[in-house]
Amino acid sequence: MSNTLENLLSAVASGEITVQNALQSLEKNSFVDLGYAKPDLDRDRRQGATEVIYGEGKTAEQIIGICQALIGAGKERVLITRVSPEKSQIIAEQLNDYSYYDEARVGLVGGFPQDRTQGMVLIAAAGTSDLPVAEEAALTAEFLGNTVERCYDVGVSGLHRLLAHEDTLRKARAIVVVAGMEGALPSVVGGLVSCPVIAVPTSVGYGASFGGIAALLGMLNSCASGVSVVNIDNGFGAGYQASLINHIAENASQEA
Amino acid sequence: MSNTLENLLSAVASGEITVQNALQSLEKNSFVDLGYAKPDLDRDRRQGATEVIYGEGKTAEQIIGICQALIGAGKERVLITRVSPEKSQIIAEQLNDYSYYDEARVGLVGGFPQDRTQGMVLIAAAGTSDLPVAEEAALTAEFLGNTVERCYDVGVSGLHRLLAHEDTLRKARAIVVVAGMEGALPSVVGGLVSCPVIAVPTSVGYGASFGGIAALLGMLNSCASGVSVVNIDNGFGAGYQASLINHIAENASQEA
Amino acid sequence: MSNTLENLLSAVASGEITVQNALQSLEKNSFVDLGYAKPDLDRDRRQGATEVIYGEGKTAEQIIGICQALIGAGKERVLITRVSPEKSQIIAEQLNDYSYYDEARVGLVGGFPQDRTQGMVLIAAAGTSDLPVAEEAALTAEFLGNTVERCYDVGVSGLHRLLAHEDTLRKARAIVVVAGMEGALPSVVGGLVSCPVIAVPTSVGYGASFGGIAALLGMLNSCASGVSVVNIDNGFGAGYQASLINHIAENASQEA
Amino acid sequence: MSNTLENLLSAVASGEITVQNALQSLEKNSFVDLGYAKPDLDRDRRQGATEVIYGEGKTAEQIIGICQALIGAGKERVLITRVSPEKSQIIAEQLNDYSYYDEARVGLVGGFPQDRTQGMVLIAAAGTSDLPVAEEAALTAEFLGNTVERCYDVGVSGLHRLLAHEDTLRKARAIVVVAGMEGALPSVVGGLVSCPVIAVPTSVGYGASFGGIAALLGMLNSCASGVSVVNIDNGFGAGYQASLINHIAENASQEA
Amino acid sequence: MSNTLENLLSAVASGEITVQNALQSLEKNSFVDLGYAKPDLDRDRRQGATEVIYGEGKTAEQIIGICQALIGAGKERVLITRVSPEKSQIIAEQLNDYSYYDEARVGLVGGFPQDRTQGMVLIAAAGTSDLPVAEEAALTAEFLGNTVERCYDVGVSGLHRLLAHEDTLRKARAIVVVAGMEGALPSVVGGLVSCPVIAVPTSVGYGASFGGIAALLGMLNSCASGVSVVNIDNGFGAGYQASLINHIAENASQEA
Amino acid sequence: MSNTLENLLSAVASGEITVQNALQSLEKNSFVDLGYAKPDLDRDRRQGATEVIYGEGKTAEQIIGICQALIGAGKERVLITRVSPEKSQIIAEQLNDYSYYDEARVGLVGGFPQDRTQGMVLIAAAGTSDLPVAEEAALTAEFLGNTVERCYDVGVSGLHRLLAHEDTLRKARAIVVVAGMEGALPSVVGGLVSCPVIAVPTSVGYGASFGGIAALLGMLNSCASGVSVVNIDNGFGAGYQASLINHIAENASQEA
Amino acid sequence: MSNTLENLLSAVASGEITVQNALQSLEKNSFVDLGYAKPDLDRDRRQGATEVIYGEGKTAEQIIGICQALIGAGKERVLITRVSPEKSQIIAEQLNDYSYYDEARVGLVGGFPQDRTQGMVLIAAAGTSDLPVAEEAALTAEFLGNTVERCYDVGVSGLHRLLAHEDTLRKARAIVVVAGMEGALPSVVGGLVSCPVIAVPTSVGYGASFGGIAALLGMLNSCASGVSVVNIDNGFGAGYQASLINHIAENASQEA
Amino acid sequence: MSNTLENLLSAVASGEITVQNALQSLEKNSFVDLGYAKPDLDRDRRQGATEVIYGEGKTAEQIIGICQALIGAGKERVLITRVSPEKSQIIAEQLNDYSYYDEARVGLVGGFPQDRTQGMVLIAAAGTSDLPVAEEAALTAEFLGNTVERCYDVGVSGLHRLLAHEDTLRKARAIVVVAGMEGALPSVVGGLVSCPVIAVPTSVGYGASFGGIAALLGMLNSCASGVSVVNIDNGFGAGYQASLINHIAENASQEA
Repeated sequence: MSNTLENLLSAVASGEITVQNALQSLEKNSFVDLGYAKPDLDRDRRQGATEVIYGEGKTAEQIIGICQALIGAGKERVLITRVSPEKSQIIAEQLNDYSYYDEARVGLVGGFPQDRTQGMVLIAAAGTSDLPVAEEAALTAEFLGNTVERCYDVGVSGLHRLLAHEDTLRKARAIVVVAGMEGALPSVVGGLVSCPVIAVPTSVGYGASFGGIAALLGMLNSCASGVSVVNIDNGFGAGYQASLINHIAENASQEA
Repeated sequence: MSNTLENLLSAVASGEITVQNALQSLEKNSFVDLGYAKPDLDRDRRQGATEVIYGEGKTAEQIIGICQALIGAGKERVLITRVSPEKSQIIAEQLNDYSYYDEARVGLVGGFPQDRTQGMVLIAAAGTSDLPVAEEAALTAEFLGNTVERCYDVGVSGLHRLLAHEDTLRKARAIVVVAGMEGALPSVVGGLVSCPVIAVPTSVGYGASFGGIAALLGMLNSCASGVSVVNIDNGFGAGYQASLINHIAENASQEA
Repeated sequence: MSNTLENLLSAVASGEITVQNALQSLEKNSFVDLGYAKPDLDRDRRQGATEVIYGEGKTAEQIIGICQALIGAGKERVLITRVSPEKSQIIAEQLNDYSYYDEARVGLVGGFPQDRTQGMVLIAAAGTSDLPVAEEAALTAEFLGNTVERCYDVGVSGLHRLLAHEDTLRKARAIVVVAGMEGALPSVVGGLVSCPVIAVPTSVGYGASFGGIAALLGMLNSCASGVSVVNIDNGFGAGYQASLINHIAENASQEA
Repeated sequence: MSNTLENLLSAVASGEITVQNALQSLEKNSFVDLGYAKPDLDRDRRQGATEVIYGEGKTAEQIIGICQALIGAGKERVLITRVSPEKSQIIAEQLNDYSYYDEARVGLVGGFPQDRTQGMVLIAAAGTSDLPVAEEAALTAEFLGNTVERCYDVGVSGLHRLLAHEDTLRKARAIVVVAGMEGALPSVVGGLVSCPVIAVPTSVGYGASFGGIAALLGMLNSCASGVSVVNIDNGFGAGYQASLINHIAENASQEA
Repeated sequence: MSNTLENLLSAVASGEITVQNALQSLEKNSFVDLGYAKPDLDRDRRQGATEVIYGEGKTAEQIIGICQALIGAGKERVLITRVSPEKSQIIAEQLNDYSYYDEARVGLVGGFPQDRTQGMVLIAAAGTSDLPVAEEAALTAEFLGNTVERCYDVGVSGLHRLLAHEDTLRKARAIVVVAGMEGALPSVVGGLVSCPVIAVPTSVGYGASFGGIAALLGMLNSCASGVSVVNIDNGFGAGYQASLINHIAENASQEA
Repeated sequence: MSNTLENLLSAVASGEITVQNALQSLEKNSFVDLGYAKPDLDRDRRQGATEVIYGEGKTAEQIIGICQALIGAGKERVLITRVSPEKSQIIAEQLNDYSYYDEARVGLVGGFPQDRTQGMVLIAAAGTSDLPVAEEAALTAEFLGNTVERCYDVGVSGLHRLLAHEDTLRKARAIVVVAGMEGALPSVVGGLVSCPVIAVPTSVGYGASFGGIAALLGMLNSCASGVSVVNIDNGFGAGYQASLINHIAENASQEA
Repeated sequence: MSNTLENLLSAVASGEITVQNALQSLEKNSFVDLGYAKPDLDRDRRQGATEVIYGEGKTAEQIIGICQALIGAGKERVLITRVSPEKSQIIAEQLNDYSYYDEARVGLVGGFPQDRTQGMVLIAAAGTSDLPVAEEAALTAEFLGNTVERCYDVGVSGLHRLLAHEDTLRKARAIVVVAGMEGALPSVVGGLVSCPVIAVPTSVGYGASFGGIAALLGMLNSCASGVSVVNIDNGFGAGYQASLINHIAENASQEA
Repeated sequence: MSNTLENLLSAVASGEITVQNALQSLEKNSFVDLGYAKPDLDRDRRQGATEVIYGEGKTAEQIIGICQALIGAGKERVLITRVSPEKSQIIAEQLNDYSYYDEARVGLVGGFPQDRTQGMVLIAAAGTSDLPVAEEAALTAEFLGNTVERCYDVGVSGLHRLLAHEDTLRKARAIVVVAGMEGALPSVVGGLVSCPVIAVPTSVGYGASFGGIAALLGMLNSCASGVSVVNIDNGFGAGYQASLINHIAENASQEA
């Protein structure tokens, strides 16, 4: 912000723009006020990624409104997470080039980008029931331009299934590990690789899994060193974080 | 009890003993009333093992009193868990043939039994800090006449250390797995063996380990099938349970 | 694994098999990759029991697919836990020799084995509402070839109902004790017998039972020595653990 | 209060006392304002028992001050709970006829009353470590004029020790049951008797006992019908409640 | 039990009954084994009250079966708590003289007893939403033969509503105080009266009431001395406990 | 009360009213007893605001009854919070001049007051999903006669959206800040202004938001100094508290 | 900030100050960077109160350094909360005009202000043990220029002690209510007055008070409408919030 | 491992090494067995970093032993976290080239590496009390060869202090954000930058901060997208994760 500020101050000092215009320029243009929401149009520049819409707790109408505001402001594609099939159907009727991924409950306007990173993001999941969360992570990372591989049902009670994929694990620039129940998979994966592991606890389980608390605590207490954690069932956040890591490396590679 | 009851009733019916004597026989003899405690003299017969004294929350004097009552009733050896070094010193001055194991904070009157089982109980521990609890389990199992092996510092973030002991794991009749932090080791061990695994969460860790809750929940939610769990830091309970399992097999073997 | 490894290495050394084949042999054959799941075909050998399918969070189609993979690989019978009646109906239409136990919500392909163990596993339950979990434990143990007895509605507030079965309690090689509310039954049973007690807390209760937490904590803190615990409502896990104990003894008996 | 109010109003109406005096009479005399405390002088009349001082979090000086205020207002005896030995020594130097019970950490000014109730209050405790709380309950009940009996170390893992006292249990008008760990004793006692059971969870235990939460939850979820519960370690509250029950009956008996 | 035992032993000694008959007499007759339940026929004698059926988690058929067993064994009336309207309709079709109280979700076979106690049990409730629990307590106490009064919507944020009933409060032999949210009412009531207060937290509230935990903790930490607590929403337990207290006094009065 | 008391006593002393009338005057007139509720008619005088009806847990009939009692006692307008659309429809058919605000689930009898305060209450909300709670606060404050402004979707991950409203923030006499998830907005707002901030955590979020606990704890631990907190989703309470603050200032201004 | 921004932009436009100076002016002067801390020198202007130092977790040296920075920047007085007596002694040796209030553990440089508000802030506390927190609130409010009154030991189990101060309660502009245990006092006070109540839960209590959680939850769920809550033991925050409220009114009064 | 495995198999096939040697090579050499610990000598190759010793729960002697084993195996430098000053003194006497950083409680053998990364890791901390954790993160990252910058005391209640460092924030490849209390800083930082944010909750705070739980939950629920979280007070883990991210980019840059 101070950068922008300095430029603006210079422009004001030189008389290029008036005080009032400078003021408006600072406060406007960076978001649209829809009343119920203020979609952020400036995130590309500020954070390197279009705003993604969290669909839960918003009506189909609100989602459509925000999409239209983003598209109207020149965005090519929009990702919407946590969309129910019912809402999705309403959205599909109002927006062009919209597709829906029902396992992950993810909607997409404008399709996936063609260009993908050199580096690869791996999504690993412990059990069949963890797939919805894993797919949310995978689709998010693909939306953000990453090359993505998947490795599912490799829980720690059958180690040979995981060890059979050790080569793939070692090739990734970032690994998202999705697991419910005791959440032990990130610790085992973290001990095998030298890239960052983003652990996602899922609410899969019953009784003393307490809706994912057991997995969350397990991951926070991981005895492996390169593991960080996102919220329970937050596939989006893990895919996003993995993408940031992958792009940091991609950018470093391109600048070199 | 109904067995005993039938015998007693027959004896009463036949006039072998009087009603009053039968009544006293039922109520007396099975415990000593020390006021502050009623040590159970009948546990050998009823449960196949002498009563073990839980030292926490008892004064050295109370512990000594209970030991003397048990020895006076003919017990050869007594195990005392959770004894502080300070209490241990007082006990050592009052009781013969007493030894103290400071890492496990366990006291022992009468030494370990010479006879050991054919079958083996394995005690595995994830980290160096888990050793006090692992040793409490190991000494308990030895006190109860088991052949015991130890396998320590084999946490899941360095799988090769565990896999190097796979043969030993497969030979055990029961495995006690002790782990703090995320408590993932029992799941991995449980996936490799076909004997029961008794998991012991430890209070080792910090922050979101919550004094062992993370490990406890991880173990209760184990994705491996043959795992049951005891209280946090309850090395004694795990060693005892493993001993019961081993003796069930030992007895079956001897009866066959 | 090291055993297998040594054999393979010898075969490779002798030229019996090529390096590539050895590699494939190590990584393949032990599981089938269905995309959404990797059923473990090797568990019989490794753990002495066919893989059991946890039905919750899997679609009927996924369950059928896994069953077919296991049957295709030569398994005689498959147990499926936590199957809703709706899913069961779909499964019943696709698989031969399928039966459903609605109280326990358990499905079974291929029927129960005829051969049963000499030793007996006892399933005790505190109240009528605990029966679904108790039956899950009982059917699991029967599926795994155990002789099973049941003793239901013997909660601690009416001790005479439990004491009337004391003889049966004493005959068991392992006892699964199922209880909700305050979960006190395992402590009382544990004080009466000399075999291992596997305690199963149930989510039966209301208010401060917190979906089974009260019972779980009660069991973890049991003042009886031979008690270990599985997850809330985990009848399967308790039946499986009891079966492991019973078979350890059965095998010891047969080897003797 | 409305009773008193009516009397006062009548007195005012008849001119027996002035408005100002009536007002003062209502607001004064019922407590002394010491600045740091306002000891309640009217509790005898209102609640049938002198105010008992909770010693925790008060300085020895404050305790002495409150005692002197109560004695100055004509109270014969004062009970002080949760007094550390250090504070007790200071108090002992300042107050006459003071005695201290160190296991229960209870101080007493003026000695116990001679007159005791016909009916009996029983204090039962599960283990040796529960004695301090049990004694706080027993001394409180004695201070309040009850005939008290004690029955200690009768935990549920050795039922015969409890059943040996069944006659005493049945004779009580109210039973205080003190237990830590899984807190199962009140359920078993509650199933044997027809008088109210006041359950006191203690902080005795470790790990998943969570400082008495396990026992507290166990007691709140008791499957026996006549059980109510007080705070963890609140021996005073249980003894007080048992005394109220006993006196309700005693008064009914005397009025009859 | 020892009482009964002594009588039986005497009878056996004198040859009045045979050993086998004595044995059967001890173990049978005190409960009926319905498979899914073992209703306790002996509770009248042992605890002074017929067994009450907890309807939750039992099918209508099971409830009917237990009622028939109890009636068949000579019981005049049966109370069933936590009965849904749907189950109630099925029960109504099968059992004679059945009535249903829908606010309290309580079913009743055989009507309320005509004879009531001299002493009164008061049921107080803080808010309108607490009425279902309060009514469960009131109906339970009436079923058990108590004279009952009700005092509803007297929460502490409008003290004058409570103080207007102070006379009634002072007349009760036991007061059940039902409150959700912060659960402060028992402390205020407890400070006004000299009889035992049984506090019932309700799950009324939202957010940080956590389904009644806030009220439960408030009541357990009551600064008033004569308060004990039952489980969240446990109107039955509180009514039962209040009845025990009232009957203790009633019996003392009659014996006097 | 003592004020009233003094007046009454004087009136009684002077014979203006009889003792019985004084007594009735004290106990009656301040509430109506509807059986299921005792609406407080005196709150205007005592607390400066009509009683607001909390609709949750009350039937439409009970709500209508209470409204009629309040209107019958001369109240001009009544606010009803937490009214479902279904109940609202029934109410609308029975009461005149009734309107319903569905986003906030608030019903209103008698319309909003025309007179508004000079001072302004600001309602800020972090995200679109927080609007229902924010609107409950806004409507409550408007019902209580406050001038209200709204500032929505200004969460801390896009600071420029909040900073664009800094002027409005500084003009408020009290600010209600509504936020779910991590609940960080009150800390940031609290650091920018010099008026009291009332923070309202919402149950918006998933996983480790635990139904609003994360936001609640965040707000309670705010590093900004002028922040206090109400219950999760308690828009009403925050609007009410803000109104009290605004009116304290309004009254001070008018008295000056 | 936008205000300041506009002024600065105008000054830059008119050439009054250079771009670089404007930039520095924006970023500097508002805090001092001490390395370990950045005390905020601008808070007076921005928030109407000097920064108060939270002493916990800071060394005496750091506290002295921050005080010197604030005094060096022209502040007349500094309040330091949570200062241990040990740290206080070191501070006293280094700073002039320093005083220490040991019950509240509060240090003060420069003394209390002479000018006080017309309006009064009342600090009420339930028990003697709550005094340290109450005093922290009282001293904070006095430091911030408020007229303060105190009303201590007025817990709800002895209502007459509170009601005796009803007049004082009604005169306050804001009331801080401090209570531990069940935290019921704010609900009762909130029902008696028409000014905002700031509730402070204290960690006073034991067992199920869980270090103040019981009181915190009780206060968050208060059935009285005008109650908001601060963190456990946060006397400072409550005193600060009450001062903000009082000053809002004071300022409104002066502006009128 | 399969890579290694293939190489080994080839070597065995070609007769370069014998089967027994291959087997030993697989199982040995990768760790040293010290009895109490099995330090991992292979982590450099497998994970790109020497094993770091977690000092808590290990004796000084055990730490020295592990250091000597690592140095003996050719490691140049060893980091030891969570070392008390007392243990550090013993270690300093036994090991050469040892230094100790007391604020962070970190010990270091062999000094920091001279070569640092091009990319920068930023460590930001909210308050003065968070410095020990922030320094643990900073020293860890420096030990692992990263260029590190620090930005402390920039909590969200004084936003201008953070915004003054916006340029530095934007230059980092990974940012570790350390905060206690409400843990809001990562959300604000995450909204300003386009690199990954690793959030570290600290146990700084009191009352409802619950030893860091409030901050942990706040961070897990961050409304900013690029935030992942490590355990409470786990500065080491965050520094390690940030280093992995920075090195992924560094390596990509060098490979390009």
